[in-house]
Amino acid sequence: MTKLGKTLKVSIITVSDRASRGEYEDKGGPAIRELLGKVFASKWEADCVIVPDEVDVIKDALINASENLGSHLVVTTGGTGPARRDVTPEATSEVLEKTLPGFGELMRAVSLKIVPTAILSRQIAGIRGGSLIINLPGKPSAIEDCLLAVLPAVVDCLDLLDAPNVEITKGSVPTYRPHKKKQSN
Amino acid sequence: MTKLGKTLKVSIITVSDRASRGEYEDKGGPAIRELLGKVFASKWEADCVIVPDEVDVIKDALINASENLGSHLVVTTGGTGPARRDVTPEATSEVLEKTLPGFGELMRAVSLKIVPTAILSRQIAGIRGGSLIINLPGKPSAIEDCLLAVLPAVVDCLDLLDAPNVEITKGSVPTYRPHKKKQSN
Amino acid sequence: MTKLGKTLKVSIITVSDRASRGEYEDKGGPAIRELLGKVFASKWEADCVIVPDEVDVIKDALINASENLGSHLVVTTGGTGPARRDVTPEATSEVLEKTLPGFGELMRAVSLKIVPTAILSRQIAGIRGGSLIINLPGKPSAIEDCLLAVLPAVVDCLDLLDAPNVEITKGSVPTYRPHKKKQSN
Repeated sequence: MTKLGKTLKVSIITVSDRASRGEYEDKGGPAIRELLGKVFASKWEADCVIVPDEVDVIKDALINASENLGSHLVVTTGGTGPARRDVTPEATSEVLEKTLPGFGELMRAVSLKIVPTAILSRQIAGIRGGSLIINLPGKPSAIEDCLLAVLPAVVDCLDLLDAPNVEITKGSVPTYRPHKKKQSN
Repeated sequence: MTKLGKTLKVSIITVSDRASRGEYEDKGGPAIRELLGKVFASKWEADCVIVPDEVDVIKDALINASENLGSHLVVTTGGTGPARRDVTPEATSEVLEKTLPGFGELMRAVSLKIVPTAILSRQIAGIRGGSLIINLPGKPSAIEDCLLAVLPAVVDCLDLLDAPNVEITKGSVPTYRPHKKKQSN
Repeated sequence: MTKLGKTLKVSIITVSDRASRGEYEDKGGPAIRELLGKVFASKWEADCVIVPDEVDVIKDALINASENLGSHLVVTTGGTGPARRDVTPEATSEVLEKTLPGFGELMRAVSLKIVPTAILSRQIAGIRGGSLIINLPGKPSAIEDCLLAVLPAVVDCLDLLDAPNVEITKGSVPTYRPHKKKQSN
Protein backbone atom coordinates (compact mmCIF):
# COMPACT_ATOMS: atom_id res chain seq x y z
CA MET A 1 0.00 0.00 0.00
CA THR A 2 2.78 2.42 0.95
CA LYS A 3 1.87 5.61 -0.90
CA LEU A 4 -1.90 5.23 -0.82
CA GLY A 5 -3.66 7.69 1.39
CA LYS A 6 -0.59 9.92 1.58
CA THR A 7 -0.97 13.49 0.44
CA LEU A 8 0.85 14.95 -2.54
CA LYS A 9 2.81 18.01 -1.46
CA VAL A 10 3.20 20.92 -3.85
CA SER A 11 5.29 24.06 -3.35
CA ILE A 12 4.38 27.15 -5.33
CA ILE A 13 7.08 29.82 -5.36
CA THR A 14 6.20 33.22 -6.79
CA VAL A 15 9.34 35.09 -7.86
CA SER A 16 8.75 38.85 -8.09
CA ASP A 17 10.46 41.86 -6.55
CA ARG A 18 7.25 43.86 -6.51
CA ALA A 19 4.99 41.10 -5.23
CA SER A 20 7.49 40.28 -2.47
CA ARG A 21 7.34 43.93 -1.30
CA GLY A 22 3.55 43.90 -1.43
CA GLU A 23 3.48 46.51 -4.23
CA TYR A 24 1.81 44.13 -6.61
CA GLU A 25 -0.76 41.40 -6.15
CA ASP A 26 0.59 37.92 -6.81
CA LYS A 27 -1.47 36.52 -9.65
CA GLY A 28 0.80 33.67 -10.75
CA GLY A 29 0.69 31.67 -7.52
CA PRO A 30 -3.14 31.65 -7.23
CA ALA A 31 -3.44 30.80 -10.95
CA ILE A 32 -1.28 27.70 -10.49
CA ARG A 33 -3.21 26.70 -7.35
CA GLU A 34 -6.54 27.02 -9.11
CA LEU A 35 -5.40 25.05 -12.16
CA LEU A 36 -3.90 22.21 -10.11
CA GLY A 37 -7.16 22.11 -8.12
CA LYS A 38 -9.05 21.39 -11.32
CA VAL A 39 -6.65 18.68 -12.47
CA PHE A 40 -5.82 16.79 -9.25
CA ALA A 41 -8.75 14.65 -8.08
CA SER A 42 -6.81 13.07 -5.19
CA LYS A 43 -5.61 14.76 -1.99
CA TRP A 44 -2.92 17.42 -2.33
CA GLU A 45 -1.73 20.40 -0.33
CA ALA A 46 0.16 23.50 -1.38
CA ASP A 47 2.76 25.61 0.38
CA CYS A 48 2.96 29.07 -1.21
CA VAL A 49 5.70 31.67 -0.82
CA ILE A 50 6.64 34.92 -2.53
CA VAL A 51 10.33 35.77 -2.94
CA PRO A 52 12.24 38.62 -4.65
CA ASP A 53 14.28 38.15 -7.86
CA GLU A 54 17.47 37.23 -6.02
CA VAL A 55 19.41 34.07 -6.93
CA ASP A 56 20.26 33.13 -3.35
CA VAL A 57 16.75 33.68 -2.03
CA ILE A 58 15.22 31.65 -4.86
CA LYS A 59 17.73 28.85 -4.30
CA ASP A 60 16.91 28.78 -0.58
CA ALA A 61 13.19 28.59 -1.34
CA LEU A 62 13.72 25.73 -3.80
CA ILE A 63 15.95 23.77 -1.43
CA ASN A 64 13.57 24.34 1.48
CA ALA A 65 10.64 23.12 -0.62
CA SER A 66 12.49 20.00 -1.72
CA GLU A 67 14.35 19.08 1.46
CA ASN A 68 12.49 20.52 4.46
CA LEU A 69 8.92 20.50 3.21
CA GLY A 70 9.44 17.31 1.17
CA SER A 71 7.38 18.67 -1.72
CA HIS A 72 7.02 16.23 -4.58
CA LEU A 73 6.24 18.99 -7.07
CA VAL A 74 7.83 22.44 -6.87
CA VAL A 75 6.74 25.10 -9.34
CA THR A 76 7.97 28.65 -9.70
CA THR A 77 6.23 31.51 -11.46
CA GLY A 78 8.00 34.63 -12.71
CA GLY A 79 11.56 35.73 -13.37
CA THR A 80 12.17 33.67 -16.52
CA GLY A 81 12.44 36.49 -19.07
CA PRO A 82 15.57 38.17 -20.46
CA ALA A 83 15.46 41.29 -18.25
CA ARG A 84 18.32 42.06 -15.87
CA ARG A 85 16.42 41.04 -12.72
CA ASP A 86 15.09 37.78 -14.24
CA VAL A 87 17.20 35.06 -12.63
CA THR A 88 14.81 32.21 -11.81
CA PRO A 89 16.34 29.76 -14.36
CA GLU A 90 19.87 30.50 -13.10
CA ALA A 91 18.82 29.85 -9.48
CA THR A 92 16.93 26.70 -10.49
CA SER A 93 19.83 25.39 -12.54
CA GLU A 94 22.09 25.59 -9.51
CA VAL A 95 19.86 23.34 -7.36
CA LEU A 96 18.90 20.71 -9.96
CA GLU A 97 20.57 17.30 -9.90
CA LYS A 98 19.08 16.32 -13.26
CA THR A 99 17.82 18.66 -15.96
CA LEU A 100 14.76 17.88 -18.08
CA PRO A 101 15.28 20.00 -21.21
CA GLY A 102 12.04 18.79 -22.82
CA PHE A 103 9.91 20.84 -20.41
CA GLY A 104 11.31 24.17 -21.54
CA GLU A 105 11.24 23.09 -25.18
CA LEU A 106 7.57 22.11 -25.01
CA MET A 107 6.48 25.18 -23.03
CA ARG A 108 8.17 27.49 -25.54
CA ALA A 109 6.74 25.57 -28.51
CA VAL A 110 3.22 25.80 -27.06
CA SER A 111 3.56 29.51 -26.26
CA LEU A 112 5.03 30.22 -29.68
CA LYS A 113 1.68 29.34 -31.23
CA ILE A 114 0.21 32.25 -29.27
CA VAL A 115 2.95 34.92 -29.24
CA PRO A 116 6.05 35.20 -31.49
CA THR A 117 8.07 36.37 -28.49
CA ALA A 118 7.74 33.07 -26.61
CA ILE A 119 11.38 32.21 -27.37
CA LEU A 120 12.36 34.84 -24.80
CA SER A 121 11.08 32.49 -22.07
CA ARG A 122 13.99 30.77 -20.40
CA GLN A 123 12.07 28.22 -18.31
CA ILE A 124 13.88 25.07 -17.24
CA ALA A 125 12.89 22.01 -15.21
CA GLY A 126 14.51 19.05 -13.54
CA ILE A 127 14.88 16.84 -10.51
CA ARG A 128 16.34 17.42 -7.05
CA GLY A 129 16.08 14.47 -4.69
CA GLY A 130 12.45 13.35 -4.77
CA SER A 131 11.16 16.66 -6.19
CA LEU A 132 10.22 17.62 -9.72
CA ILE A 133 11.00 21.34 -10.10
CA ILE A 134 9.46 23.35 -12.95
CA ASN A 135 9.75 27.01 -13.89
CA LEU A 136 6.48 28.46 -15.16
CA PRO A 137 5.96 31.91 -16.73
CA GLY A 138 4.62 34.85 -14.72
CA LYS A 139 1.44 35.65 -16.62
CA PRO A 140 -1.65 33.59 -15.65
CA SER A 141 -2.67 32.97 -19.27
CA ALA A 142 0.81 31.72 -20.15
CA ILE A 143 0.87 29.63 -16.97
CA GLU A 144 -2.26 27.82 -18.06
CA ASP A 145 -0.93 27.10 -21.57
CA CYS A 146 2.41 25.84 -20.26
CA LEU A 147 1.19 23.89 -17.23
CA LEU A 148 -1.54 22.06 -19.14
CA ALA A 149 1.00 21.10 -21.81
CA VAL A 150 3.43 19.51 -19.36
CA LEU A 151 0.96 18.02 -16.84
CA PRO A 152 0.71 14.57 -18.47
CA ALA A 153 4.49 14.25 -18.11
CA VAL A 154 4.38 15.72 -14.59
CA VAL A 155 2.02 12.96 -13.48
CA ASP A 156 4.17 10.19 -14.98
CA CYS A 157 7.27 11.76 -13.45
CA LEU A 158 5.63 11.86 -10.00
CA ASP A 159 4.84 8.15 -10.40
CA LEU A 160 8.50 7.52 -11.28
CA LEU A 161 9.69 9.57 -8.28
CA ASP A 162 7.50 7.41 -6.03
CA ALA A 163 5.34 10.35 -4.94
CA PRO A 164 1.93 9.69 -3.38
CA ASN A 165 -0.50 8.44 -5.97
CA VAL A 166 -2.17 11.19 -8.00
CA GLU A 167 -5.64 10.79 -9.43
CA ILE A 168 -6.53 13.02 -12.37
CA THR A 169 -9.92 14.65 -12.92
CA LYS A 170 -11.49 12.95 -15.91
CA GLY A 171 -11.26 15.04 -19.06
CA SER A 172 -8.83 17.58 -17.57
CA VAL A 173 -5.57 16.45 -19.18
CA PRO A 174 -4.58 13.34 -21.16
CA THR A 175 -2.69 10.73 -19.14
CA TYR A 176 -0.18 8.02 -19.95
CA ARG A 177 1.01 6.26 -16.82
CA PRO A 178 3.21 3.24 -17.44
CA HIS A 179 4.78 3.67 -13.98
CA LYS A 180 1.62 4.06 -11.89
CA LYS A 181 1.55 1.84 -8.81
CA LYS A 182 -1.29 -0.65 -8.62
CA GLN A 183 -4.01 0.09 -6.06
CA SER A 184 -3.96 -2.50 -3.26
CA ASN A 185 -7.71 -2.60 -2.67
CA MET B 1 11.77 60.63 -24.24
CA THR B 2 15.22 59.21 -23.46
CA LYS B 3 15.79 56.68 -26.22
CA LEU B 4 14.05 58.52 -29.04
CA GLY B 5 16.35 59.77 -31.73
CA LYS B 6 19.15 57.51 -30.55
CA THR B 7 20.58 55.08 -33.06
CA LEU B 8 20.35 51.33 -32.68
CA LYS B 9 23.83 49.82 -32.83
CA VAL B 10 24.33 46.42 -34.42
CA SER B 11 27.52 44.36 -34.55
CA ILE B 12 27.87 41.74 -37.26
CA ILE B 13 30.69 39.27 -36.67
CA THR B 14 31.58 36.89 -39.50
CA VAL B 15 33.41 33.84 -38.16
CA SER B 16 35.42 32.09 -40.87
CA ASP B 17 39.05 31.06 -41.17
CA ARG B 18 39.03 31.48 -44.94
CA ALA B 19 37.14 34.78 -45.04
CA SER B 20 39.44 36.21 -42.33
CA ARG B 21 42.47 35.37 -44.52
CA GLY B 22 40.80 36.91 -47.56
CA GLU B 23 40.62 33.56 -49.36
CA TYR B 24 36.87 33.62 -49.48
CA GLU B 25 34.35 36.39 -49.90
CA ASP B 26 32.26 37.00 -46.77
CA LYS B 27 28.67 36.39 -47.81
CA GLY B 28 27.07 35.97 -44.39
CA GLY B 29 27.82 39.46 -43.07
CA PRO B 30 26.40 41.31 -46.08
CA ALA B 31 23.34 39.03 -46.10
CA ILE B 32 22.55 39.96 -42.50
CA ARG B 33 23.12 43.66 -43.22
CA GLU B 34 20.81 43.58 -46.22
CA LEU B 35 18.04 41.74 -44.36
CA LEU B 36 18.16 44.06 -41.34
CA GLY B 37 18.03 47.03 -43.75
CA LYS B 38 14.73 45.73 -45.07
CA VAL B 39 13.24 45.15 -41.62
CA PHE B 40 14.44 48.17 -39.61
CA ALA B 41 12.63 51.37 -40.60
CA SER B 42 14.28 53.50 -37.91
CA LYS B 43 17.92 54.60 -37.72
CA TRP B 44 20.53 51.90 -37.15
CA GLU B 45 24.22 51.45 -37.80
CA ALA B 46 26.31 48.34 -38.21
CA ASP B 47 29.87 47.54 -37.24
CA CYS B 48 31.16 44.55 -39.24
CA VAL B 49 34.22 42.42 -38.54
CA ILE B 50 35.59 39.14 -39.84
CA VAL B 51 37.42 36.83 -37.42
CA PRO B 52 38.93 33.33 -37.70
CA ASP B 53 37.41 30.23 -36.01
CA GLU B 54 39.33 30.72 -32.77
CA VAL B 55 37.52 30.73 -29.41
CA ASP B 56 39.59 33.55 -27.90
CA VAL B 57 39.33 35.80 -30.97
CA ILE B 58 35.57 35.28 -31.19
CA LYS B 59 35.17 36.00 -27.48
CA ASP B 60 37.18 39.21 -27.82
CA ALA B 61 35.02 40.31 -30.75
CA LEU B 62 31.82 39.61 -28.80
CA ILE B 63 33.01 41.42 -25.68
CA ASN B 64 34.27 44.37 -27.74
CA ALA B 65 30.91 44.61 -29.51
CA SER B 66 28.98 44.50 -26.26
CA GLU B 67 31.21 46.59 -23.99
CA ASN B 68 33.28 48.97 -26.13
CA LEU B 69 30.97 49.53 -29.07
CA GLY B 70 27.84 49.34 -26.92
CA SER B 71 25.99 47.33 -29.56
CA HIS B 72 22.43 46.50 -28.63
CA LEU B 73 22.27 43.61 -31.05
CA VAL B 74 25.27 41.39 -31.80
CA VAL B 75 24.95 38.68 -34.43
CA THR B 76 27.51 36.16 -35.57
CA THR B 77 27.49 34.16 -38.79
CA GLY B 78 29.41 30.92 -39.31
CA GLY B 79 31.19 28.38 -37.14
CA THR B 80 28.10 26.72 -35.66
CA GLY B 81 28.36 23.29 -37.28
CA PRO B 82 29.86 20.08 -35.86
CA ALA B 83 33.24 20.30 -37.65
CA ARG B 84 36.45 20.50 -35.64
CA ARG B 85 37.03 24.21 -36.36
CA ASP B 86 33.42 25.21 -35.59
CA VAL B 87 33.58 26.86 -32.16
CA THR B 88 31.28 29.88 -32.34
CA PRO B 89 28.71 28.50 -29.84
CA GLU B 90 31.47 27.59 -27.36
CA ALA B 91 32.93 31.11 -27.55
CA THR B 92 29.48 32.67 -27.28
CA SER B 93 28.52 30.51 -24.33
CA GLU B 94 31.54 31.77 -22.41
CA VAL B 95 30.55 35.44 -22.71
CA LEU B 96 26.79 35.16 -22.11
CA GLU B 97 25.34 36.15 -18.75
CA LYS B 98 21.92 34.71 -19.59
CA THR B 99 21.16 32.05 -22.19
CA LEU B 100 18.01 32.12 -24.32
CA PRO B 101 17.57 28.48 -25.39
CA GLY B 102 14.43 29.25 -27.39
CA PHE B 103 16.39 30.98 -30.16
CA GLY B 104 18.40 27.90 -31.09
CA GLU B 105 15.34 25.69 -30.75
CA LEU B 106 13.28 27.86 -33.11
CA MET B 107 16.07 28.34 -35.66
CA ARG B 108 16.66 24.60 -35.85
CA ALA B 109 12.92 23.87 -36.08
CA VAL B 110 12.53 26.35 -38.93
CA SER B 111 15.58 25.01 -40.80
CA LEU B 112 14.44 21.43 -40.28
CA LYS B 113 11.49 22.11 -42.55
CA ILE B 114 14.01 22.83 -45.32
CA VAL B 115 16.89 20.38 -44.71
CA PRO B 116 16.91 17.19 -42.57
CA THR B 117 20.43 18.04 -41.41
CA ALA B 118 19.38 21.22 -39.58
CA ILE B 119 19.84 19.50 -36.21
CA LEU B 120 23.60 19.77 -36.78
CA SER B 121 23.31 23.54 -36.23
CA ARG B 122 24.48 24.39 -32.75
CA GLN B 123 23.38 28.05 -32.63
CA ILE B 124 22.80 29.63 -29.24
CA ALA B 125 21.74 33.09 -28.09
CA GLY B 126 21.59 35.12 -24.91
CA ILE B 127 22.28 38.35 -23.08
CA ARG B 128 25.49 40.06 -22.01
CA GLY B 129 25.03 43.42 -20.33
CA GLY B 130 22.74 45.45 -22.58
CA SER B 131 23.40 43.30 -25.66
CA LEU B 132 21.35 40.56 -27.23
CA ILE B 133 23.82 38.12 -28.84
CA ILE B 134 22.64 35.63 -31.46
CA ASN B 135 24.51 33.00 -33.47
CA LEU B 136 23.25 32.71 -37.04
CA PRO B 137 24.25 30.07 -39.61
CA GLY B 138 26.86 30.76 -42.29
CA LYS B 139 24.83 30.26 -45.46
CA PRO B 140 22.85 33.33 -46.64
CA SER B 141 19.69 31.30 -47.36
CA ALA B 142 19.78 29.74 -43.89
CA ILE B 143 20.50 33.17 -42.37
CA GLU B 144 17.33 34.54 -43.90
CA ASP B 145 15.16 31.66 -42.65
CA CYS B 146 16.58 31.85 -39.14
CA LEU B 147 16.78 35.62 -38.74
CA LEU B 148 13.24 36.23 -39.99
CA ALA B 149 11.95 33.58 -37.56
CA VAL B 150 13.52 35.19 -34.50
CA LEU B 151 13.17 38.88 -35.42
CA PRO B 152 9.80 39.44 -33.69
CA ALA B 153 11.39 38.26 -30.44
CA VAL B 154 14.56 40.26 -31.15
CA VAL B 155 12.53 43.47 -31.34
CA ASP B 156 10.68 42.76 -28.07
CA CYS B 157 13.96 41.84 -26.40
CA LEU B 158 15.57 45.10 -27.55
CA ASP B 159 12.60 46.94 -26.00
CA LEU B 160 13.16 45.03 -22.75
CA LEU B 161 16.91 45.80 -22.80
CA ASP B 162 16.06 49.51 -23.12
CA ALA B 163 17.74 49.81 -26.51
CA PRO B 164 16.89 52.79 -28.76
CA ASN B 165 13.41 52.47 -30.15
CA VAL B 166 13.18 50.29 -33.26
CA GLU B 167 10.55 50.88 -35.92
CA ILE B 168 9.73 47.95 -38.16
CA THR B 169 9.02 48.18 -41.88
CA LYS B 170 5.35 47.41 -42.35
CA GLY B 171 4.76 43.89 -43.63
CA SER B 172 8.35 42.74 -43.06
CA VAL B 173 7.94 40.68 -39.90
CA PRO B 174 5.08 40.27 -37.40
CA THR B 175 5.49 42.27 -34.21
CA TYR B 176 4.26 41.89 -30.64
CA ARG B 177 5.65 44.63 -28.42
CA PRO B 178 4.24 44.69 -24.89
CA HIS B 179 7.40 46.46 -23.64
CA LYS B 180 7.67 49.19 -26.28
CA LYS B 181 8.19 52.65 -24.80
CA LYS B 182 5.52 55.22 -25.58
CA GLN B 183 6.51 57.94 -28.08
CA SER B 184 6.64 61.32 -26.36
CA ASN B 185 5.33 63.36 -29.29
CA MET C 1 40.70 7.64 -52.40
CA THR C 2 41.47 7.68 -48.66
CA LYS C 3 38.25 6.59 -46.98
CA LEU C 4 36.95 4.28 -49.71
CA GLY C 5 36.94 0.63 -48.80
CA LYS C 6 37.36 1.45 -45.12
CA THR C 7 34.74 0.14 -42.76
CA LEU C 8 32.46 2.34 -40.68
CA LYS C 9 32.82 1.48 -37.01
CA VAL C 10 29.82 1.72 -34.72
CA SER C 11 29.74 1.24 -30.95
CA ILE C 12 26.45 0.32 -29.32
CA ILE C 13 26.41 0.76 -25.55
CA THR C 14 23.43 -0.62 -23.63
CA VAL C 15 23.09 1.11 -20.26
CA SER C 16 21.06 -0.95 -17.80
CA ASP C 17 21.71 -2.25 -14.29
CA ARG C 18 19.55 -5.30 -14.84
CA ALA C 19 20.82 -6.17 -18.31
CA SER C 20 24.43 -5.81 -17.13
CA ARG C 21 23.75 -8.36 -14.36
CA GLY C 22 22.08 -10.71 -16.84
CA GLU C 23 18.69 -10.38 -15.12
CA TYR C 24 17.11 -8.88 -18.18
CA GLU C 25 17.58 -9.48 -21.88
CA ASP C 26 19.09 -6.49 -23.69
CA LYS C 27 16.54 -5.45 -26.28
CA GLY C 28 17.83 -1.95 -27.07
CA GLY C 29 21.22 -2.96 -28.43
CA PRO C 30 19.89 -5.57 -30.89
CA ALA C 31 17.13 -3.16 -32.00
CA ILE C 32 19.75 -0.54 -32.93
CA ARG C 33 21.88 -3.14 -34.71
CA GLU C 34 18.95 -4.38 -36.75
CA LEU C 35 17.83 -0.89 -37.74
CA LEU C 36 21.31 0.24 -38.79
CA GLY C 37 21.60 -2.97 -40.82
CA LYS C 38 18.55 -1.94 -42.81
CA VAL C 39 19.79 1.60 -43.41
CA PHE C 40 23.53 1.14 -44.08
CA ALA C 41 24.18 -0.40 -47.50
CA SER C 42 27.97 -0.10 -47.25
CA LYS C 43 30.31 -2.05 -44.95
CA TRP C 44 30.01 -1.42 -41.22
CA GLU C 45 30.83 -3.28 -38.04
CA ALA C 46 29.44 -2.95 -34.54
CA ASP C 47 31.02 -3.37 -31.14
CA CYS C 48 28.35 -3.97 -28.48
CA VAL C 49 28.68 -3.71 -24.71
CA ILE C 50 26.32 -3.69 -21.76
CA VAL C 51 27.16 -1.49 -18.77
CA PRO C 52 25.37 -0.64 -15.49
CA ASP C 53 23.83 2.79 -14.75
CA GLU C 54 27.04 4.20 -13.25
CA VAL C 55 28.45 7.53 -14.48
CA ASP C 56 32.08 6.42 -14.38
CA VAL C 57 31.45 3.10 -16.13
CA ILE C 58 29.40 4.79 -18.87
CA LYS C 59 32.10 7.44 -19.33
CA ASP C 60 34.78 4.75 -19.64
CA ALA C 61 32.70 2.91 -22.25
CA LEU C 62 32.17 6.10 -24.27
CA ILE C 63 35.84 7.09 -24.15
CA ASN C 64 36.94 3.56 -25.04
CA ALA C 65 34.56 3.52 -28.00
CA SER C 66 35.79 6.87 -29.25
CA GLU C 67 39.52 6.63 -28.53
CA ASN C 68 40.52 2.96 -28.44
CA LEU C 69 38.04 1.42 -30.83
CA GLY C 70 37.99 4.50 -33.09
CA SER C 71 34.23 4.24 -33.57
CA HIS C 72 32.82 6.89 -35.86
CA LEU C 73 29.32 6.52 -34.45
CA VAL C 74 28.66 5.75 -30.78
CA VAL C 75 25.09 5.20 -29.65
CA THR C 76 23.80 4.46 -26.18
CA THR C 77 20.44 3.00 -25.25
CA GLY C 78 18.82 3.36 -21.82
CA GLY C 79 19.32 5.49 -18.73
CA THR C 80 17.93 8.74 -20.13
CA GLY C 81 14.78 9.06 -18.00
CA PRO C 82 14.25 11.07 -14.80
CA ALA C 83 14.65 8.16 -12.34
CA ARG C 84 17.41 8.21 -9.75
CA ARG C 85 19.58 5.61 -11.53
CA ASP C 86 19.21 7.27 -14.96
CA VAL C 87 22.55 9.00 -15.55
CA THR C 88 23.42 8.38 -19.20
CA PRO C 89 23.07 12.06 -20.26
CA GLU C 90 25.23 13.20 -17.33
CA ALA C 91 27.98 10.72 -18.25
CA THR C 92 27.72 11.63 -21.93
CA SER C 93 27.84 15.34 -21.20
CA GLU C 94 31.15 14.90 -19.38
CA VAL C 95 32.89 13.31 -22.38
CA LEU C 96 31.53 15.52 -25.18
CA GLU C 97 33.74 18.22 -26.70
CA LYS C 98 30.83 19.73 -28.66
CA THR C 99 27.14 19.36 -27.88
CA LEU C 100 24.51 19.05 -30.60
CA PRO C 101 21.29 20.20 -28.87
CA GLY C 102 19.20 19.64 -32.00
CA PHE C 103 19.36 15.86 -31.66
CA GLY C 104 17.61 15.78 -28.28
CA GLU C 105 15.13 18.44 -29.41
CA LEU C 106 14.14 16.46 -32.51
CA MET C 107 13.97 13.10 -30.74
CA ARG C 108 11.69 14.54 -28.05
CA ALA C 109 9.51 16.31 -30.65
CA VAL C 110 9.11 13.08 -32.64
CA SER C 111 8.32 11.01 -29.54
CA LEU C 112 5.88 13.64 -28.30
CA LYS C 113 3.62 12.85 -31.24
CA ILE C 114 3.34 9.32 -29.83
CA VAL C 115 3.37 9.74 -26.02
CA PRO C 116 2.72 12.91 -23.97
CA THR C 117 5.47 11.87 -21.56
CA ALA C 118 8.26 12.18 -24.15
CA ILE C 119 9.51 15.37 -22.52
CA LEU C 120 10.87 13.19 -19.69
CA SER C 121 13.53 11.92 -22.12
CA ARG C 122 16.81 13.64 -21.44
CA GLN C 123 18.78 12.42 -24.47
CA ILE C 124 21.74 14.47 -25.62
CA ALA C 125 24.26 14.13 -28.44
CA GLY C 126 27.54 15.62 -29.54
CA ILE C 127 31.07 15.14 -30.76
CA ARG C 128 34.21 13.75 -29.13
CA GLY C 129 37.26 13.62 -31.37
CA GLY C 130 36.16 11.88 -34.56
CA SER C 131 33.08 10.30 -32.98
CA LEU C 132 29.44 11.30 -33.11
CA ILE C 133 27.87 10.22 -29.81
CA ILE C 134 24.09 9.93 -29.47
CA ASN C 135 21.88 8.89 -26.56
CA LEU C 136 18.87 6.85 -27.66
CA PRO C 137 15.94 5.76 -25.49
CA GLY C 138 15.73 2.27 -23.98
CA LYS C 139 12.54 0.96 -25.55
CA PRO C 140 12.92 -0.60 -29.05
CA SER C 141 9.85 1.20 -30.44
CA ALA C 142 11.13 4.57 -29.20
CA ILE C 143 14.61 3.73 -30.53
CA GLU C 144 13.20 3.26 -34.01
CA ASP C 145 11.24 6.54 -33.94
CA CYS C 146 14.22 8.52 -32.65
CA LEU C 147 16.97 6.91 -34.70
CA LEU C 148 15.09 7.16 -37.99
CA ALA C 149 14.42 10.85 -37.29
CA VAL C 150 18.07 11.73 -36.74
CA LEU C 151 19.72 9.37 -39.29
CA PRO C 152 19.79 11.86 -42.20
CA ALA C 153 21.78 14.23 -39.98
CA VAL C 154 23.93 11.37 -38.68
CA VAL C 155 25.03 10.53 -42.22
CA ASP C 156 25.90 14.15 -43.04
CA CYS C 157 27.75 14.47 -39.74
CA LEU C 158 29.77 11.31 -40.47
CA ASP C 159 30.73 12.87 -43.84
CA LEU C 160 31.82 16.04 -42.01
CA LEU C 161 33.83 14.03 -39.47
CA ASP C 162 35.67 12.36 -42.35
CA ALA C 163 34.38 8.90 -41.45
CA PRO C 164 34.50 6.10 -44.05
CA ASN C 165 31.95 6.66 -46.75
CA VAL C 166 28.45 5.46 -45.89
CA GLU C 167 26.02 4.28 -48.54
CA ILE C 168 22.35 4.37 -47.63
CA THR C 169 19.80 1.73 -48.61
CA LYS C 170 17.47 3.32 -51.14
CA GLY C 171 14.14 4.30 -49.61
CA SER C 172 15.25 3.75 -46.02
CA VAL C 173 15.80 7.34 -44.87
CA PRO C 174 15.96 10.66 -46.76
CA THR C 175 19.48 11.94 -47.38
CA TYR C 176 21.04 15.36 -47.87
CA ARG C 177 24.79 15.11 -48.22
CA PRO C 178 26.52 18.37 -49.15
CA HIS C 179 29.77 17.13 -47.55
CA LYS C 180 29.96 13.66 -49.14
CA LYS C 181 33.38 12.88 -50.63
CA LYS C 182 33.46 12.16 -54.34
CA GLN C 183 34.09 8.53 -55.34
CA SER C 184 37.49 8.17 -57.04
CA ASN C 185 36.46 5.44 -59.50
